[in-house]
Amino acid sequence: MLDLSYSEAIQHRIDNKTKPLGALGQLEKLAHQLALIQSQGKKAATSEIVLANPTLLVFAGDHGIATQGVSIAPSEVTTQMVQNFLSGGAAINSFCNVADLTLKVVDCGILTDLSADHPELISQRLGKVTADFSQQAAMSLESVEKGISLGRQVVRKQIDSGSNVLMFGEMGIGNTSSAAALMALLTSVNVDDCVGKGTGINEEQLSLKTSLIGKAVKRANAVNHDETSAELSPTLALAEVGGFEIVQMVGAFIEAREANVPVLVDGFIVTVAAYVAHLIKPEIQEGLIFAHCSQENAHQHLLSLMQAEPLLDLGLRLGEGTGAALAYPLLQASAEFYNRMASFDDAGVTV
Amino acid sequence: MLDLSYSEAIQHRIDNKTKPLGALGQLEKLAHQLALIQSQGKKAATSEIVLANPTLLVFAGDHGIATQGVSIAPSEVTTQMVQNFLSGGAAINSFCNVADLTLKVVDCGILTDLSADHPELISQRLGKVTADFSQQAAMSLESVEKGISLGRQVVRKQIDSGSNVLMFGEMGIGNTSSAAALMALLTSVNVDDCVGKGTGINEEQLSLKTSLIGKAVKRANAVNHDETSAELSPTLALAEVGGFEIVQMVGAFIEAREANVPVLVDGFIVTVAAYVAHLIKPEIQEGLIFAHCSQENAHQHLLSLMQAEPLLDLGLRLGEGTGAALAYPLLQASAEFYNRMASFDDAGVTV
Repeated sequence: MLDLSYSEAIQHRIDNKTKPLGALGQLEKLAHQLALIQSQGKKAATSEIVLANPTLLVFAGDHGIATQGVSIAPSEVTTQMVQNFLSGGAAINSFCNVADLTLKVVDCGILTDLSADHPELISQRLGKVTADFSQQAAMSLESVEKGISLGRQVVRKQIDSGSNVLMFGEMGIGNTSSAAALMALLTSVNVDDCVGKGTGINEEQLSLKTSLIGKAVKRANAVNHDETSAELSPTLALAEVGGFEIVQMVGAFIEAREANVPVLVDGFIVTVAAYVAHLIKPEIQEGLIFAHCSQENAHQHLLSLMQAEPLLDLGLRLGEGTGAALAYPLLQASAEFYNRMASFDDAGVTV
Repeated sequence: MLDLSYSEAIQHRIDNKTKPLGALGQLEKLAHQLALIQSQGKKAATSEIVLANPTLLVFAGDHGIATQGVSIAPSEVTTQMVQNFLSGGAAINSFCNVADLTLKVVDCGILTDLSADHPELISQRLGKVTADFSQQAAMSLESVEKGISLGRQVVRKQIDSGSNVLMFGEMGIGNTSSAAALMALLTSVNVDDCVGKGTGINEEQLSLKTSLIGKAVKRANAVNHDETSAELSPTLALAEVGGFEIVQMVGAFIEAREANVPVLVDGFIVTVAAYVAHLIKPEIQEGLIFAHCSQENAHQHLLSLMQAEPLLDLGLRLGEGTGAALAYPLLQASAEFYNRMASFDDAGVTV
């Protein structure tokens, strides 16, 4: 848990800036959160929020369920889009460019192994593709544990090389299905409200997707129900219906929180990973900054469940971390006003 | 009116980027709007959106009605805050710094003449303070006309010195009262829904503010009603209840539109100025980008009246152009994806 000793001092600093109390709305909460995290273990509240080497990690993975036609594109497109990220042609490249963010792609397990030397590619594959979770468990419990550990590892590497703020995004044809199934298994929201159109499937595909996920949820609950508990454990749920990229993000969230590194959470799939991580370690929520509310209805549901106040609402439905990259300048703005804006005394303003 | 000949070509370019159709939501509309504006008078749709020397103009003015206690602070604070802008200590300075925006303050008429040489201050004063519009007309029709012309002039200067994208913000104790009165006079929204708490007055002040504005609206309608028309003309309304900074912004919006320079509109007061400008010249709306929805209820009303889709909704209630500066990185992101993102052909993606 965060040490709240400096919370008041930080709020005092914010309240004495030359503006009416609370007039900067969500940016004030954001500055408070960042300052509190960066004051942990210090002798006083930090007088400067430092954002060092902001890095966006795109976790990529392929999903067996994609063969069922629940997505607008086949699994091959995951590899193609990863190549697009690595050659700088995707939306996330554009947004990282303008915000001056370091972009890295984590191959958590996609159809084609691209692990030729590419400086932005981190290869930590759990396989080629998960098993089709509408038929059987997506992966073994060993894979879940290995994935969580690899997720921790990639975050540790970024921190060791000087990053103190991270953004998580994802790429994986079929991964809204996996995210929806996890949400249905681990929250009390019913399946229909967990499933959406992803990047843009039609009504027929949506109905197929919903029925397959409903079936998978039933199977998972029947097979794995722990008799001593009313709920499926998060790791079992990950094995049953998770994805390689989702599992690694769960580990990544845990490591970031333990290191007091805040994470900007992108869209629906990343939010589901954050939700699963918070079931394992509730305090991870203190380090989360929710970048945006996407067009996926289930995302809006899950955000309210987590009492999140996303920064942006731009009708995005792309993933890749695009919402997180677009929200990052708001962190810079929060840090800058906390660090440099004059107090009433400084400025001789008599409000 | 904008020439729409290249609209389809621009949309085609956006639709062929490596992403599902429409997946970048509002950013796609923004890219379309920027590209269309920058294609005017060209021989083909522009292949590159260029954002040159983005400049934020803060229009400052003082208001006679402030002596009635309708604000959280006395008129002296307008001058103090302008000094704060000029010495770099305000929120808007922080936000312009991180987004690398040029900031200029336009003294449209504030209590104290600060026109000593300051490179960021543009002095074009219509007076010290408007007359208290709860008692009499705020200014003469001549002042309105002079103000509109000065507003045009300051925009022309920025364009001549290389800016092709502008942001408008404001500072002026009492100016939500003036904005509310203009809105009540020039829309069919009733007075109660035009008046809000500004930067944070209490219930008693709110009720005083509402009653004074109601009185002013009656007076203005009685004195100036043009017998040949059911509505007060925008310029007469500006004379009756306007402010020096609002009048100049009206001119500024008109000049920017004529020069095909898009303007990021900040909060309630700036939106009212844009509304008045569009009554004078309807096509100005084509060049507007609405930065955010502030906490002022009347702002939300007016934005829906103008069918605006603001980019941000962060609970801001500060003014100064803060919302516009915070939204600016979204313009950069739109331009960058339009300019640099790969097409499906470029990337060999087979969706």
